[in-house]
Amino acid sequence: MHYRDFGKTGMKTGVEPNPRLSTVVRAAELAKKEECDVVIGMGGGSVMDASKVIAASVLYEGDPKDMLVRAGKAPRFPERALPIITVPTLAATGSEMNCGAVITIDDEEEKLKTFVMTEVLYPKVAVVDPELTITVPKAHTAYGVCDIITHVTEGYFNGIDVTPIQDRFAEGVILTVLEWGPKAVSNGSDLEARTQIQWASIVALNGWVQAGVNAPYPVHQIEHTLSALYDIPHGAGLAVVNPAWMRFAARFRPERFAQFAQRIFGISAMGKDDLSLAMEGIDRFEEFLRSIGCPTRLSELGIGKVTDEMLSYWADKTLEVLCDEEGKLPGRPPLRKEDIVEILRMAM
Amino acid sequence: MHYRDFGKTGMKTGVEPNPRLSTVVRAAELAKKEECDVVIGMGGGSVMDASKVIAASVLYEGDPKDMLVRAGKAPRFPERALPIITVPTLAATGSEMNCGAVITIDDEEEKLKTFVMTEVLYPKVAVVDPELTITVPKAHTAYGVCDIITHVTEGYFNGIDVTPIQDRFAEGVILTVLEWGPKAVSNGSDLEARTQIQWASIVALNGWVQAGVNAPYPVHQIEHTLSALYDIPHGAGLAVVNPAWMRFAARFRPERFAQFAQRIFGISAMGKDDLSLAMEGIDRFEEFLRSIGCPTRLSELGIGKVTDEMLSYWADKTLEVLCDEEGKLPGRPPLRKEDIVEILRMAM
Repeated sequence: MHYRDFGKTGMKTGVEPNPRLSTVVRAAELAKKEECDVVIGMGGGSVMDASKVIAASVLYEGDPKDMLVRAGKAPRFPERALPIITVPTLAATGSEMNCGAVITIDDEEEKLKTFVMTEVLYPKVAVVDPELTITVPKAHTAYGVCDIITHVTEGYFNGIDVTPIQDRFAEGVILTVLEWGPKAVSNGSDLEARTQIQWASIVALNGWVQAGVNAPYPVHQIEHTLSALYDIPHGAGLAVVNPAWMRFAARFRPERFAQFAQRIFGISAMGKDDLSLAMEGIDRFEEFLRSIGCPTRLSELGIGKVTDEMLSYWADKTLEVLCDEEGKLPGRPPLRKEDIVEILRMAM
Repeated sequence: MHYRDFGKTGMKTGVEPNPRLSTVVRAAELAKKEECDVVIGMGGGSVMDASKVIAASVLYEGDPKDMLVRAGKAPRFPERALPIITVPTLAATGSEMNCGAVITIDDEEEKLKTFVMTEVLYPKVAVVDPELTITVPKAHTAYGVCDIITHVTEGYFNGIDVTPIQDRFAEGVILTVLEWGPKAVSNGSDLEARTQIQWASIVALNGWVQAGVNAPYPVHQIEHTLSALYDIPHGAGLAVVNPAWMRFAARFRPERFAQFAQRIFGISAMGKDDLSLAMEGIDRFEEFLRSIGCPTRLSELGIGKVTDEMLSYWADKTLEVLCDEEGKLPGRPPLRKEDIVEILRMAM
């Protein structure tokens, strides 16, 4: 199909934020009918992620739902996909250069934000032009900045021990985003700032910074439940969940959070134990998120009064996507249902 | 040829330090005769570099000398090579994962240490096992550490402006090597330290840290002349040339050297102009090199009394390998012959 025909098919503007599997399936059927040769994902993370799963679904035998990760069901990852071209219009997800995609299952049986990550989903070409991000509004620029930082902190705090170069790389991405992120938020037309956070979004999650670190992404998993159920922007949800998760996890690995406080915010360790130092660093991180306009509390997400039942349900939904053999969400530490509830309560 | 036949052919131990083109040519003839399918470079940078050029020479039409860079003669880069496997036994060159090779032309007409860098020289497989480096002696471990740092400083100081993430990555490699290098030098059996500098040697020069930085390597070019003529270890020569070059170049770009002083050695900028701050950082870098046992003066390289004629000859030889249209060695700043002489004099 020629790109000029895109408008006709209605595919061009057809991907919603927090993209649904039903949209993917419809698009894949259309792509089959039109005998598409290639899928171009031009947009933010939702568009790029949907494009990847569309490209795989076209050649997938069976129900595309089966390629998505769900706890207790072995996913059947796609082995082929149409060539994928990504053209990001937002600095945030890193989806432009990685092989993952986050999709919300929205059929009658279940509603679940989950993911697929496998080789064939690597884009063949990524056309990255920061000029395309100039018109992104302040709020979404800030959410993107939070997403970038969170990609890096997940690896930094949940990875194996003794990865000194990878630590420095992660810190380098964060320091760069702390410097250039606010500039991009305050003046969207600052092309230099847009360029720096665009490159940061790529390196934050194209595999290099975390090479060998082998980290799970618990903050993302907890947030996905929120954005699946309430359709909030992913980066805004992360700004709420990440500081709360950090405060919880710092108790278990205070020395690493103390390193974060010292190296990222230059906080002096003098006369402090690791945990107080860690907490000071997390406070500073939260202040930064607020300073660029991110929400940092559940009450700011527009989802109304949060009840105990809701917290419990959110924790269950999170564990439905991913859990280890003991039923815990992978991470450092692995999280039981009550831990997830506690983290969410800390975010209230 | 089966690897068990290697001993017979005499190739296994046939590569000298600062490898010669004549050795490469002999090995390539042997490889043709024996119908080798693959070239395995197991050793330090010299062995790996020679292996790459052997692999290319086997399939090269014409004189392998023509694939090497010489000022004023357009190189005819190889377009094919036998598959190359690298197995580094020293943390230093990064040759295990890049597509470059440094070779000394040693025929009757000229003696010149130069290089080839082109796609087909990428190893197909790199088998990197830090245990193989446990027996490297203290001095050569230290020279390797200097080589790693210099790969990074070349990009850091000679690259384009405004590369904030790449700066942080470069600083991350240096900070890691400053921490783990001395441990590897003082206790060669410290496998953790060996592992960290091994990984550092890879990332320092496999293209990632310097992505988009577009930097020439003037310190390497100047050093190559010394190791070509006097057969000194490359890393030892770099320890002599690099601080001298830095002191010269800091005058032209003091703010970047001031950044180095602050971020690498934590030197306070209070009450100092950029240049004094820069010089303090360079002094600290030189002290570090001394502390691990590197020479930092020409007089320590065992090449006897250095005369004005020698300095002039070395500068000429350096420019014979590489120079721009104005006859200057590329770098920031580009260096005239008299600049190279001045730098070498600063190293006396």
